[in-house]
Formats: sequence, structure tokens, C-alpha cells
Amino acid sequence: MTVTGAGPRITAVDTYDIRFPTSRELDGSDAMNPDPDYSAAYVVLRTDAADGHEGHGFTFTIGRGNDVQVAAVEALRPHLVGRPADALCADPGTLARDLTGDSQLRWLGPEKGVMHMAIGAVVNAAWDLAAKRAGKPLWKFLADAEPEWLVSQVDFRYIADVLSAEDALGLLRRGRGGRGEREALLRADGYPGYTTSPGWLGHSDEKLTRLAREAVADGFTQIKLKVGADLADDVRRMRAARAAVGPGIRIAVDANQRWNIGEAVEWTRALAEFDPYWIEEPTSPDDILGHAEIRRAVAPVRVATGEHVQNRIVFKQLLQAGAVDVLQIDAARVGGVNENLAILLLAAAFGVPVCPHAGGVGLCELVQHLSMFDYVALTGTTENRVIEYVDHLHEHFTDPVVVRGGRYAAPDAPGFSATMRPESIAEFTYPGGSFWAADAAVAAAAAEEAAV
Amino acid sequence: MTVTGAGPRITAVDTYDIRFPTSRELDGSDAMNPDPDYSAAYVVLRTDAADGHEGHGFTFTIGRGNDVQVAAVEALRPHLVGRPADALCADPGTLARDLTGDSQLRWLGPEKGVMHMAIGAVVNAAWDLAAKRAGKPLWKFLADAEPEWLVSQVDFRYIADVLSAEDALGLLRRGRGGRGEREALLRADGYPGYTTSPGWLGHSDEKLTRLAREAVADGFTQIKLKVGADLADDVRRMRAARAAVGPGIRIAVDANQRWNIGEAVEWTRALAEFDPYWIEEPTSPDDILGHAEIRRAVAPVRVATGEHVQNRIVFKQLLQAGAVDVLQIDAARVGGVNENLAILLLAAAFGVPVCPHAGGVGLCELVQHLSMFDYVALTGTTENRVIEYVDHLHEHFTDPVVVRGGRYAAPDAPGFSATMRPESIAEFTYPGGSFWAADAAVAAAAAEEAAV
Repeated sequence: MTVTGAGPRITAVDTYDIRFPTSRELDGSDAMNPDPDYSAAYVVLRTDAADGHEGHGFTFTIGRGNDVQVAAVEALRPHLVGRPADALCADPGTLARDLTGDSQLRWLGPEKGVMHMAIGAVVNAAWDLAAKRAGKPLWKFLADAEPEWLVSQVDFRYIADVLSAEDALGLLRRGRGGRGEREALLRADGYPGYTTSPGWLGHSDEKLTRLAREAVADGFTQIKLKVGADLADDVRRMRAARAAVGPGIRIAVDANQRWNIGEAVEWTRALAEFDPYWIEEPTSPDDILGHAEIRRAVAPVRVATGEHVQNRIVFKQLLQAGAVDVLQIDAARVGGVNENLAILLLAAAFGVPVCPHAGGVGLCELVQHLSMFDYVALTGTTENRVIEYVDHLHEHFTDPVVVRGGRYAAPDAPGFSATMRPESIAEFTYPGGSFWAADAAVAAAAAEEAAV
Repeated sequence: MTVTGAGPRITAVDTYDIRFPTSRELDGSDAMNPDPDYSAAYVVLRTDAADGHEGHGFTFTIGRGNDVQVAAVEALRPHLVGRPADALCADPGTLARDLTGDSQLRWLGPEKGVMHMAIGAVVNAAWDLAAKRAGKPLWKFLADAEPEWLVSQVDFRYIADVLSAEDALGLLRRGRGGRGEREALLRADGYPGYTTSPGWLGHSDEKLTRLAREAVADGFTQIKLKVGADLADDVRRMRAARAAVGPGIRIAVDANQRWNIGEAVEWTRALAEFDPYWIEEPTSPDDILGHAEIRRAVAPVRVATGEHVQNRIVFKQLLQAGAVDVLQIDAARVGGVNENLAILLLAAAFGVPVCPHAGGVGLCELVQHLSMFDYVALTGTTENRVIEYVDHLHEHFTDPVVVRGGRYAAPDAPGFSATMRPESIAEFTYPGGSFWAADAAVAAAAAEEAAV
């Protein structure tokens, strides 16, 4: 972009293809994703400001294709290098609109898939930079912002028929009442979480039972089981889980898009005797009308989806069609914080609780900020709201989530908790990082030995 | 992939980033795409068979990001190299399922955006190879196929609630009746087209009027105007177009996703006095419920969409919701021929006419085959069906479309008409091809002169 005027600027957009070899442990295995290598297309925005702050962001992927995702982030570089940092931090929404509005890049979506996830990574990095420069964790940065400014950060195109800027302003103004008290409560007690760690498909029944009991002992009031590969297995695993946790703990089940409509209904009904709290991703995330049909058929079991929902336009329709009881935002699949503000506002307008998708690489770190903002300054409640928690890969972040007694502690460090440790980046960059280089050397040696 | 058994194999997957400098002429300009550089992420599948046939395919983009699209095609290479060519040509559906089912790559969609368009390019290349080896143009290759085999080529996942394999088989069996006669008619008379060449936003009123008259003189019975940038301009242009062509010629208008729901309704009503035949892409292609609302409000003006619809699941819902009068498939945005078979079957089941999107780079060359198959062996009619035609860039293909008297002549050459001339590839490969290298040299010289 054109460089004019004084003040610090974005000087570099550095990208990293980071992959963790999670498929070797079967953590993260589900009915659609048997062997994910949890990965991140990671981006760092650097400036020439004296404060030295960087903006970190990423999109989560599960292995192959992470290089394509990195290429998409790099395609955004011309919009970033040279951009004045003060203006960017004062108004990330202009960047978000410039990126989604690039008419040539827009053809590759629009607002969906690889290109849109790249925009999400970059926009989130801009918010990380803005919150760091403001010296606040992102949730607090958002909660302290004026409603008028927050509304200016939202793109109402294609959702204005359901939520106008005026509607949004009204919700945010009402949401501010009592926020000081809620902020104090949040800092004291944290925000409720639930854990998916017991329920991966790759776990034995024994491991499932043990981890489910540990989750309850740790203070979680909800766990989640992956389902959808084999009904008899699922009935047995659900029975074991219910026996392990007792009747008072919520057990959500998650099919990861495995079913057609009819299968989703039958399978969910077959599990109903064990009182599943919600059925998550019963079918394609694109099937709004299908989710509505499933929801009507499986009530009182709730229907949840959203981690693969591409943008605010599909979320709008899921709400319009009465297709979901629980809306699951993802921090890095849509166009970043700005689009997630739109989605939180839509959910608030319809009174549907948001329970973010997390896990993966750094998703817990990100989504906690969005839920905490929602609690402090938008909906004002945590009722029936929980943030997903998966207990792995947090050690790679400089400001990892803290979950105690089944609740997320409010982060204190400035920023979006998105910063990965430099030594983790050096080790797990693909294919040149130390882990992958050593792995390739071992494989080459084994191949040579086999050939002899 | 693992290499076993005898017979020819796929030995190479060559990719090309091809860009034409169309933005310099404002051909192709519309309300959302002011300056497209029509481009193709182009792929050639090579085999070691003695026949020397290659499979050519591509995805159309409009410039920036074409490199990301090429990277996505390259991410599919491990699924292709070493694959037996006979089995591939006997059953492209297995390749299509392997590609959309790659669990790690699937995360980048699923079935949408850059990754899905890459799958479309590769799957179409496989069909090009299969049709060339069979010695038939693709439309004839499909029309001669057994209904059972065609059904085996369709992925019914997520659409089975509306269209089962049995339903599809019934449609295809009924569609075969009288196909010999229709094939003869098609070869004699061609398939109706309509032209968008008069109506780009960048054209003056004088050029619009002149080109509209020429289109009628050339035998077209439908033209299309781009709208959506400025209402007063659109009213003036629509009046001029109607005056130029008279009352008997259909004039479609195309807003390229420019509007919210309310705007779409108001704008379309403001143009209604000039009898627009359809309003195309009035809003986001993701807004199924929005299109349904617009359609109810603007009748009898028809609603058309589809060129940016990501997959069969969204097409299914557009039909379920009664959101469209005209369904516009695109040859290379969805997952290739296999997914387009699913979409043609869905449209046939709902009795909604398909009028393919074309233009761009090579899209006319591709979609004609799908419409001609539909006519000969599925719906058996061309009533209210027209293929878009735009008169540019055809000279870069070895088997360009032939449009006479406003009708597409049935191609005779074996394959999918997807093969680009080697000299065009050499000239327009970006950034190293002769055109772009010369362009960069001129720009560098100008910059040097300006600096002196």
C-alpha cells in the first residue's frame, strides 16, 4: 500500500508453517478426522514503533494444506506492509473491510475457505497488536470500548436485514450496565469451561472412563464425547461415560459432520437414553435447513454447530431458521474479531447462547477473550455458556490459558494470548524445524536400511 | 499414492499460473469486480500411456490469489501421481471422493473456497482425459454412459434427504428416452446461448446500445446487463438497452452480490418497468433464506444465482427453500463434473432450469458440455435454458466454442474443450511468461525514468 505521513508502520508480515505431530497419539481423533496433525498457519505483524510490540495471529488446520493456508496469508501482505500502525490499532475494522473487499481475492471465497481463514489470522494479529499497545488483554480492551466504536468495527453487509447498526448499538448499550461488577466476578471466579479430552474416538473405554472421572474431579460440569463412526460403539461408550460421571454432569456428543439428516436423527435418538446435552455438527455445516429439521426431530436434545461455519451470513440463517440451540464460534475460521463481533451480536439478538469451539492449536487461548467480552459487556450472563477446553499444546504459548476447577481464569497479559514461544516455532516449523528435520532424517535412515 | 499393478499411470501433475491483463480494457467489469485480470490456475495430468493423451483442467480466478489457487492444486498431487490411468478414467468418482475426503485437506473447506475449486480443476482434468481416451466430446461421453454408472459418479452425502441414488437413477432412466433424436437435433441446431458482452459496467451507453443491437442481429434472444453500482445509471442503461433490442428480447440483469435484501428488492422493483428477465446474484451467494425472500418480493422478475455457490449442499437448499427460478452452475467452482452431475440431478428433480455461468477463462468451453448432456440424456429440453456467452479469450483454446445465430454448436473434438494453446501458456504465465516479463520490463524502465 501507499506510504504517506509520519508515525510507525507495519514493516513485515512474517509467516510460519507450524505443525505438531499429534496424529501419533490419536489425541484429536474423531469420526471425520482420524489422524490430524494439529497445525497453524502463523503470522507475525512487525512495526518500526519503539515499543517493539508485534501482532500475532494464526489459523488452525490439521496438517496437509497448511502450506496453502500460509500462501493465502502471504497473498494479503500488500495490504499490510506500510500501513500506519496507529490507524490500524485505532480501527482494525478498516483493515478487515479492505481484506474481505479486495475484489480479486474475493473471487476465491467470497468470505469462506482458505482465503477467509487467512483474513481471520491477519485480522486477529491486528487485534493482538492493538490490545498489546493498549496494555490490556483483548477481552478487557473490547469490554472497555465505546458501543459506537464497537459498532463501527462490524460489517453489516448481508446481515442488515436481521441486525442493523442501530440494533447492535442498542444491544451494546444495554450490555454495559453492571459491567464493573461482572468484571470483578470474572476476575474472581473465571468463566465456565467444558472438556473434550476424555472423549476422543481413539481412546479405549478404560481411558474414557478414567478421564471422564478425572474431569468431574477437576471441577468440570460438562464433558464431550466424539461419536459417529459406529453406533454400537457409541452406545457402549456413552453408557460408560454416563456411568462414570453420574446424572448431574452434562455430556455433549459431537459427530463432526458425519451424517446425513436421517442418520443424524436416528443416531441421536439411539443415544437419547443417556441424556446427551447437545448433538454437535450432526451434518454438513452448510446445511442450514438440515440442522433445522434435525433440531425439530431430536428435541429435547439440543443441536450445536459453528466451528466450520464459514461466515456471519450462514450464522444469521442458522438463527433465522431456528436451526441451533447452541452457537459455536471459532476464533480463526471466520474473518477474525470483527466478524466474531457480528456473530456475538446476532446470537445476542436471538437469545441463543454461544459456546465457542476450542482445542486445536491455540484456540482456547483466543476464544476465551471473546466469551469474556460477551459476558462483561454484551449478554451479561454465563448461563448455559461454556468454553470448550482441550488439554494439549498450551505449553507452546507464552500466555497459556489457566483452567482451574473447570473454569477459565481471566487472562491479565496484554494482547490476544496468541503469541507462540519462539523455541516452539523453531522446533515445529514444517519441514525445516528441528523436530521435522530430525523426523525426516530418521525416516531416510530407515528407508536406507530397508533397501539394503 | 502406492504404485502397484501394470498399465499406464499418472506420471505428472503440471500446474500453471496464467493471467490475462483484461483489467486494462474494462471487459468483465461489474459492481463488485471493477478491474479483473481474468486468470486460470491451470493443471495438466500426464500419463505414460502410449496414446499421449493429457488431462487438462483449470479453475477460473480474476487475478491476485491465482498463486494461492495453484498452491491448492499442488497440494492434491500426492493423490494423483502413480494413480492407474485406466481405473481413473473408468471411474473419476473415486478420485473425486478421495480428494474431497482427504481428512486433513477437508479442514480447509469443507467443500468450499480455494481447496474445493482446486479439486474441481483436477477432477475436470480427469474427465478431460477420460473423454479424450474414449474419443468423444465430454457431453457425448456422458450422454452415452449407463444411468447406473452415472449414479455411481455422484456423492449423495448431505443431499440424500432430497435426492437418493434411486431417485437419480429414475431421472436418468427416464431422461434416456428419445436421446438419439435429441442428439441429432443438437448436432444440427446447437444449444441456445445468451450474451453478456454488451452489458459490462465499464461500457458507455453508446457502446452498450451498439453491442446490444449487434447481439440481436447475431441471433441472440437474450442479453445481460451488469447493474448495482448506481441506480440512476442502471435505470438509464436499462432503458437504453430495452430501446435498442425491443420488447421481444430477454434482458437479464446481474448485481454480482452487491446488495442487502432490502436494497435488492427496491433496486429490482425500480428496474421492473423495463421487464428484466431475471435478477442475478442480488445478494450474497450464501444467503439461501435471503434469496427466497427476494424472490417472493420481486416476482414476476425471476431470481438467478449459482456461479459463486460453493457446493451441492447449498444448491440443494436453494431449491428446497424455493429461492431461485434459474440455477446457474459453474464448471470450476464446485468439485468438478461429479458434483455438477449431482447439481444437474437436483435441478431436474425440482424442475428448475439450469443456465450455466460462463465467460471468464474457458468457462464457455466447459459448461457447454454439461448443458448438452443435460439436454440429450437428462431433462430432454432446452426450454428456458441458455448458456452464458462472452466473446473473449476463446482464441487461447485449441477447441474454442463455436457460437452461431446465438447458439452453441455441439463440440466434436474428444475431451472437455479445456486444452489451452501452448503458446498462450508461454505468453501469459505469471510472472515469467513473455507478456508479463515484457510488461515488468516496461514498468521498470518507466520507474527508472521517473526517478531520474
